[in-house]
Amino acid sequence: MANKKNNSRKYTIGLIQIALEKDPEKNLKKAVSWVEKASRKGAKVICLPELFISQYFCQEEDIKFFELAETIPGPSTKAMSKIAAKNKVVIIVPVFEKRAKGVYHNTAVVINSDGKITGMYRKMHIPDDPHYYEKFYFTPGDLGFQSFKTNHGNIGTLICWDQWYPEGARLTALSGADVIFYPTAIGWHPAEKKEHGKAQFESWQTVQRGHSIANGVYVAAANRVGLEKQTEGSAGIEFWGSSFISDPQGVIIAQASKDKEEIILAEVDPLRIEYIRTNWPFLRDRRIDAYSGIEKRFLDGDK
Amino acid sequence: MANKKNNSRKYTIGLIQIALEKDPEKNLKKAVSWVEKASRKGAKVICLPELFISQYFCQEEDIKFFELAETIPGPSTKAMSKIAAKNKVVIIVPVFEKRAKGVYHNTAVVINSDGKITGMYRKMHIPDDPHYYEKFYFTPGDLGFQSFKTNHGNIGTLICWDQWYPEGARLTALSGADVIFYPTAIGWHPAEKKEHGKAQFESWQTVQRGHSIANGVYVAAANRVGLEKQTEGSAGIEFWGSSFISDPQGVIIAQASKDKEEIILAEVDPLRIEYIRTNWPFLRDRRIDAYSGIEKRFLDGDK
Repeated sequence: MANKKNNSRKYTIGLIQIALEKDPEKNLKKAVSWVEKASRKGAKVICLPELFISQYFCQEEDIKFFELAETIPGPSTKAMSKIAAKNKVVIIVPVFEKRAKGVYHNTAVVINSDGKITGMYRKMHIPDDPHYYEKFYFTPGDLGFQSFKTNHGNIGTLICWDQWYPEGARLTALSGADVIFYPTAIGWHPAEKKEHGKAQFESWQTVQRGHSIANGVYVAAANRVGLEKQTEGSAGIEFWGSSFISDPQGVIIAQASKDKEEIILAEVDPLRIEYIRTNWPFLRDRRIDAYSGIEKRFLDGDK
Repeated sequence: MANKKNNSRKYTIGLIQIALEKDPEKNLKKAVSWVEKASRKGAKVICLPELFISQYFCQEEDIKFFELAETIPGPSTKAMSKIAAKNKVVIIVPVFEKRAKGVYHNTAVVINSDGKITGMYRKMHIPDDPHYYEKFYFTPGDLGFQSFKTNHGNIGTLICWDQWYPEGARLTALSGADVIFYPTAIGWHPAEKKEHGKAQFESWQTVQRGHSIANGVYVAAANRVGLEKQTEGSAGIEFWGSSFISDPQGVIIAQASKDKEEIILAEVDPLRIEYIRTNWPFLRDRRIDAYSGIEKRFLDGDK
């Protein structure tokens, strides 16, 4: 029962939803102040939006943006380590990672409440859509899917485009996460918003609630807000905010606005996970003998 | 382009939502008349609810219910073959399959529009929850996940509890299905309905909409309605109907009531699947090199 007690401690998580500007120093300073604010509100595990140090530069392909990349450790993780230790909080720090000359990743670093780096996740699924030209910048991750034991709880991290992949959520949950964090940068193309905006947003939230349900885990997605244009004359992207937290049954337990800077909080209760997973014992009945084919691109042998 | 034309033909699918009684002959006769009705309404692929030949006997464990099992071909598939050929429709026929003495399956038979059996799927994930004692009756399926080329379109079949497993939907979609049918028998325990009913229903629908989104396929779930009690004095199960069809973006395009017998129809448009999958190219970016672990029960190596 000792173990049960250790694993059953509840903790509050906080998502930071902010607008970002072009200057990395200003963004880092701003992020630090929002992390401190979240800590004052009681959050013990705090997640920032994807690539929070800059505007979403992937709207264009331009090598000048590689200048935004930083090492790990580097300015972002050093600043956040200090603030993590000071406030005894865990911070999920998205970083445009410079790993080597010519090798860059879209990374989430998990900093423990003592200020030390617990581990990191490199975005595995990399998009390439009009104005989300990430394949130009980011080498696909090579660390696999994982979760991290922190002083406050077992957490998993995935990033944005990973949201659409049940395999990523499944493997992260199977590795022991109570909650899967998704630092995010997603929004509407202004010209499409009226016709497709509602369906796009609902697909995004629904598929993630599905991950909560199928795996019996909390899901927490932290998005940015605001209209960002990389060049004059471009329509830009209107980031849709709507950061949210769903419980292990897929119920939304915290939901941010579409356009305001704010912090949302929710309690992660490991015993709630156990309750849901024993009532709906999906993990018990997985047909692990029969999932061969998942590692194939398409099963068109007889087509 | 010839291929494209062949694969791009739209077709209407129909789900039959009915209440069932104890007498298999009456249920079969009723189902035949509803299939004909769906055909008159224009449905070309028609799906019946799970185990439609009887009430949901799995509320109890009693060997007398094995008498309900039938061979394939057998009474259900023979009656449906006749009606399929007569109306030139494809029918998904759920059967309590007697494969051998002591080997029984929860099966969906796909009958083509010429009346011949195209193939069958044996339920892979078998539940065992209070009053859903299916592990007592059904041997887990051994045919894997698959889809079937019929004269009207490429369809996949899974059954009820499979709804909670992203792996099943993924493998069925990867095998070429435009639409995944889920014959279903799910409902509320009357005592739980008030407190948990809404969340249970929403989890059920949300996780399936998630399969539509993640895979860019139509999903079509056909459930029964009505309160069924296997024994006097038991509270029974109130089957919640709500059969629905979602499009490749997870949008609900047809939705039945919670308690009425009815047919719902929707058009499956293979070009819509292509449009959605090229706009949101999730299948393109799957990390098939990194999904190892899916075939494990849990990844607790370092826990």
